[in-house]
Amino acid sequence: MKSKKDILSILDIKDEIPKILDLAIKFKNGEIGGKPLEGKSLAMIFQKSSTRTRVSFEVGMYELGGNSLFLSGSDLQMFRGESISDTAKVLSRYVDGIMIRASNHQDIVELSSEADIPVINGLTDLEHPCQALADMQTILEKKGNFNGKLAYVGDGNNVCNSLLLISACVGMDISIATPKNYQPSEDIISKAENISKKTGSKIQITDIVEDAVFGADKVYTDVWVSMGNEEEKEKRRNDFLKYQVNSKLMKLAAKDAIFMHCLPAIRGEEVVTEVIDGSQSVVIDQAENRLHAQKAVLYYLLK
Amino acid sequence: MKSKKDILSILDIKDEIPKILDLAIKFKNGEIGGKPLEGKSLAMIFQKSSTRTRVSFEVGMYELGGNSLFLSGSDLQMFRGESISDTAKVLSRYVDGIMIRASNHQDIVELSSEADIPVINGLTDLEHPCQALADMQTILEKKGNFNGKLAYVGDGNNVCNSLLLISACVGMDISIATPKNYQPSEDIISKAENISKKTGSKIQITDIVEDAVFGADKVYTDVWVSMGNEEEKEKRRNDFLKYQVNSKLMKLAAKDAIFMHCLPAIRGEEVVTEVIDGSQSVVIDQAENRLHAQKAVLYYLLK
Amino acid sequence: MKSKKDILSILDIKDEIPKILDLAIKFKNGEIGGKPLEGKSLAMIFQKSSTRTRVSFEVGMYELGGNSLFLSGSDLQMFRGESISDTAKVLSRYVDGIMIRASNHQDIVELSSEADIPVINGLTDLEHPCQALADMQTILEKKGNFNGKLAYVGDGNNVCNSLLLISACVGMDISIATPKNYQPSEDIISKAENISKKTGSKIQITDIVEDAVFGADKVYTDVWVSMGNEEEKEKRRNDFLKYQVNSKLMKLAAKDAIFMHCLPAIRGEEVVTEVIDGSQSVVIDQAENRLHAQKAVLYYLLK
Repeated sequence: MKSKKDILSILDIKDEIPKILDLAIKFKNGEIGGKPLEGKSLAMIFQKSSTRTRVSFEVGMYELGGNSLFLSGSDLQMFRGESISDTAKVLSRYVDGIMIRASNHQDIVELSSEADIPVINGLTDLEHPCQALADMQTILEKKGNFNGKLAYVGDGNNVCNSLLLISACVGMDISIATPKNYQPSEDIISKAENISKKTGSKIQITDIVEDAVFGADKVYTDVWVSMGNEEEKEKRRNDFLKYQVNSKLMKLAAKDAIFMHCLPAIRGEEVVTEVIDGSQSVVIDQAENRLHAQKAVLYYLLK
Repeated sequence: MKSKKDILSILDIKDEIPKILDLAIKFKNGEIGGKPLEGKSLAMIFQKSSTRTRVSFEVGMYELGGNSLFLSGSDLQMFRGESISDTAKVLSRYVDGIMIRASNHQDIVELSSEADIPVINGLTDLEHPCQALADMQTILEKKGNFNGKLAYVGDGNNVCNSLLLISACVGMDISIATPKNYQPSEDIISKAENISKKTGSKIQITDIVEDAVFGADKVYTDVWVSMGNEEEKEKRRNDFLKYQVNSKLMKLAAKDAIFMHCLPAIRGEEVVTEVIDGSQSVVIDQAENRLHAQKAVLYYLLK
Repeated sequence: MKSKKDILSILDIKDEIPKILDLAIKFKNGEIGGKPLEGKSLAMIFQKSSTRTRVSFEVGMYELGGNSLFLSGSDLQMFRGESISDTAKVLSRYVDGIMIRASNHQDIVELSSEADIPVINGLTDLEHPCQALADMQTILEKKGNFNGKLAYVGDGNNVCNSLLLISACVGMDISIATPKNYQPSEDIISKAENISKKTGSKIQITDIVEDAVFGADKVYTDVWVSMGNEEEKEKRRNDFLKYQVNSKLMKLAAKDAIFMHCLPAIRGEEVVTEVIDGSQSVVIDQAENRLHAQKAVLYYLLK
């Protein structure tokens, strides 16, 4: 049994979320100085490319005094025939942690099980825990607490899965509106419901977008076509038409509702310019908080 | 109105050139020590690949105590559908400056207008200001002043545009010989002429290569086929035939004339081996001065 | 005559191997602290991609207080028309050393002859000296000395060439079993034999795999199909069939023999899972020692 910690899923930090968010806020306020990760190296593996994840982790490690290595799919032999196990064992000898963005969640589960060092999920087909942490930090900043309801509208994807789990953990109500064939993972729903029994979070899964948004003080959406399902582009655009976040939909939400999106966004598809570039939008703050939340994650796992 | 400074064009530093060159010389002489940019990060965005620009900026940031992130076109979502505006706003939250090499100058103007942090032009289709600064540093080193004439021979491209502007700013005479269809930008010529009224720089635009080189104490050329116009290769080779810098042409210049080129060079096209690898050539010094001039730029913008 | 040192071949450090191995062991034991390479930059040029070489050099430079730049073939103009000579001269002005992984050994010889700074061979078609140093460190760790015989089985490639030379230098017996058309370089064999006259190393080149392995206390193999000869895949698999390292073959070796492989490995081809993942295998230690041996190399060349 290895003693190292991982963050592959929100479930891995179920009980540590308040502590990590507290660290994140301290980092944002400049209350933690020095070079706590001096001498430490983080391998960042990107099977898919990314702007926010890459830049925020790389700057985060630097600001903590550490070093990061950007390894793209084409740089790395892991995605071209070398076994995940060998890669995990070798990297464990060179670096102090691995951040990985991979298509297949099972790959990072295997990587973690063979590695002696912490593994951080930087996005898989199943979850996006670092985004969810940054989102909770943003909600705390803007709302002061988790009292109101979060409406997630659109594709029941990795971002949605992690939001569902973290909402359950922090005791926040969440209402998810997706077309019937695009609901979040059954397994994630049941895990979230289980957690919510203790925390009191109310969970709603619906296909009626108006129900989800009604009275919410946070409205969240994500792209309809993620990397990996480009071939279904036309079908998805049709299926999601009614789930666009526009001014009419936002009117159903609370007056002081904030609009959230993990970016990149496609204006005119899942959200209109008026909303994402309007006064309710907090999307750039969300992006910024990736940096602070991930510094908290790195500090928590590698210090 | 943002208070940040940019260097998209030589025009952005019209009055600061002497100050920046002075800093560059001090950096080369090792007169500025310490880690003035400690804790600062520079995003380096490369839509086109580059050796000198990449290595000189990355080493420069390190030597100033800072951190740099190499973002290639394929790493970044900006060139694959994400809006320039979102990229600018998000990067402004993560890093302290952006160096960008882009095909389209308008892209970096837009990036700069949306960013809250300094943006440095690392080469566009319109200008190459960092190269021009390194070139002026090289001229000061080799000649001691800007008294003699610079002859630029060949393609009226980005490098030529920035040389024209910087020559006007520092009061150096410049004579540009290009085939009729390859003259520098009309707009740049008129801006340079305007500046030259104050500084006294004489500007000549001609298609007669001998006129330009005659009596010059600096002879400068660049490749005939830049990245982006490879499809016109054969046509360009024909059009530029008479503009090759060879020993016969160099004999028209001053006895102590130096030969300049921003590299990469194609021997046997725009310049012959005898000249670029001969005793008059200062091309490796020019390349080295990219490092020092850019450290000055980074210090000036980010300190 | 330049005074700088290079490591293009094991022959370049013929007499320094004990000193470098001693440094490597000290680095592994944490006996050399501080930031001996602070302020120094290493350009790492990869014409072919690599995991171990890249990560171990990048982490090594960081741990020594220095900076490294990852330049892939596609980032660098050197492999797209710019002369090796210009690249060498320019990099000599920017950085303190070059690590290069290239297809053609002659390219790095040319690079070194034009550069004013140390050049390190990070793998070419002819040699892999850094791997050989890490391998000797591993043998010292596991065996305490170089008394026993090393059996190398399979393709007489770059790894085999460097192992042959380093075995001759340290006075270790080596027996190499390859199919007749896959023997190590004639020139390398003759140089190794020459060195062995002084050091007493016994060298055997054979095509009978049982002869090589019999009594050996180190059994080493490498992939049958390296990057660059993928088109001969089927032919090679047939030619090497008898050279697979499996349990039956390992029984011919000494009871306490260790199994070595430079990775990546293809289980079921050159080695079976039972052996590479079994108790005799030291392949992960070999990979780890790349880090320590290369820190010794960097310290030796750049300090």
